[in-house]
Amino acid sequence: MDFSSKLLENAVNEISQLPGIGKRTALRLALHLLRQPEENTSSLAEAITKLRSEIKFCKRCHNISDFELCEICKNPNRNPEVVCVVEDVRDVMAIENTSQFKGTYHVLGGKISPMDGIGPNDLTIHSLVEKVKSGTIKELIFALSSTMEGDTTNFYIFKQIEPFNVLTTTIARGIAVGDELEYADEVTLGRSIVNRIPFENSLKI
Amino acid sequence: MDFSSKLLENAVNEISQLPGIGKRTALRLALHLLRQPEENTSSLAEAITKLRSEIKFCKRCHNISDFELCEICKNPNRNPEVVCVVEDVRDVMAIENTSQFKGTYHVLGGKISPMDGIGPNDLTIHSLVEKVKSGTIKELIFALSSTMEGDTTNFYIFKQIEPFNVLTTTIARGIAVGDELEYADEVTLGRSIVNRIPFENSLKI
Ligand SMILES: [Zn+2]
Ligand SMILES: [Zn+2]
Repeated sequence: MDFSSKLLENAVNEISQLPGIGKRTALRLALHLLRQPEENTSSLAEAITKLRSEIKFCKRCHNISDFELCEICKNPNRNPEVVCVVEDVRDVMAIENTSQFKGTYHVLGGKISPMDGIGPNDLTIHSLVEKVKSGTIKELIFALSSTMEGDTTNFYIFKQIEPFNVLTTTIARGIAVGDELEYADEVTLGRSIVNRIPFENSLKI
Repeated sequence: MDFSSKLLENAVNEISQLPGIGKRTALRLALHLLRQPEENTSSLAEAITKLRSEIKFCKRCHNISDFELCEICKNPNRNPEVVCVVEDVRDVMAIENTSQFKGTYHVLGGKISPMDGIGPNDLTIHSLVEKVKSGTIKELIFALSSTMEGDTTNFYIFKQIEPFNVLTTTIARGIAVGDELEYADEVTLGRSIVNRIPFENSLKI
């Protein structure tokens, strides 16, 4: 692209570093900012700068937090003996939105993925194993996405904690509520049949 | 969404003010920044802040510029007597990419659009008419997108400058009617400039 301004070119280059945002979209966003009051741009810039420089990660569960301990870990009504293992903050938010879970979390920060150069030491697995060793956890719920990387990560953690006395479960895979059976993929449908539950149990939710 | 951090919530709210970016995408972008080195976020924040606070608009053609006069207006090889009227900076970039045009530009800053509350005074039409009055322009090429708003704007300007002795042309419609200029391929756009026709002729179709 042939920019008439170094300032514009630089802004477009920076914006297009963001994932999923190409040069054309970046240019559209930059020109949008130029049409808005200057305060809009400065509050956007300040918000992302503060986010990056001041954010903390909960020292117990590694969830994003503004304090040493996150709101969930701090909450006395949440059960620290039941720990749901998730990939990242978005999964915590998704599960919290269901209002179905009263335990706590452990945020791994990703999945083991040799293709992307992500090994166990790039994740918070060590800290999870230490928590299990210390005997504070009764149940560990695996809630990683059911991809090859998710399964690998589940299995790696499972092997690490096997010697210790902790119940290990995994969230049920099945047909989404409201989905037509005929459109479900075979693997999901297969699992939902194999892992069927007593009908009465489904009525309790 | 139920955020575990005010800093994150604030950043997501700010990012999702950008056009075409919803809360979910904004969250993905914010979490991406958190995984990158802090310098990435600060250089992004600095680039957009500087863009907004330091950008200038060329005092002759209203193109975006880092100086009083833009590179095109400053260039002695560009013909100031042939002026191409465009909506915004993206159109200047699109036409420059064709290398088919050796005149200069006049950037309107939009189109007349009563629906969006944009009238002639919100655009740089007055400054264009003054340039025509002063006799420095021999040919005015309309290169607005061929929408109802574009046609309205062309016609409004045409009526204003009709009393003065200036050739008025419009880029050839090799570009599909209703298409935005910036998405046209270079060859089509280049030809449409070379084959421009008198504006009056375009009214007959
Ligand atoms: Zn926590
Ligand atoms: Zn200029």
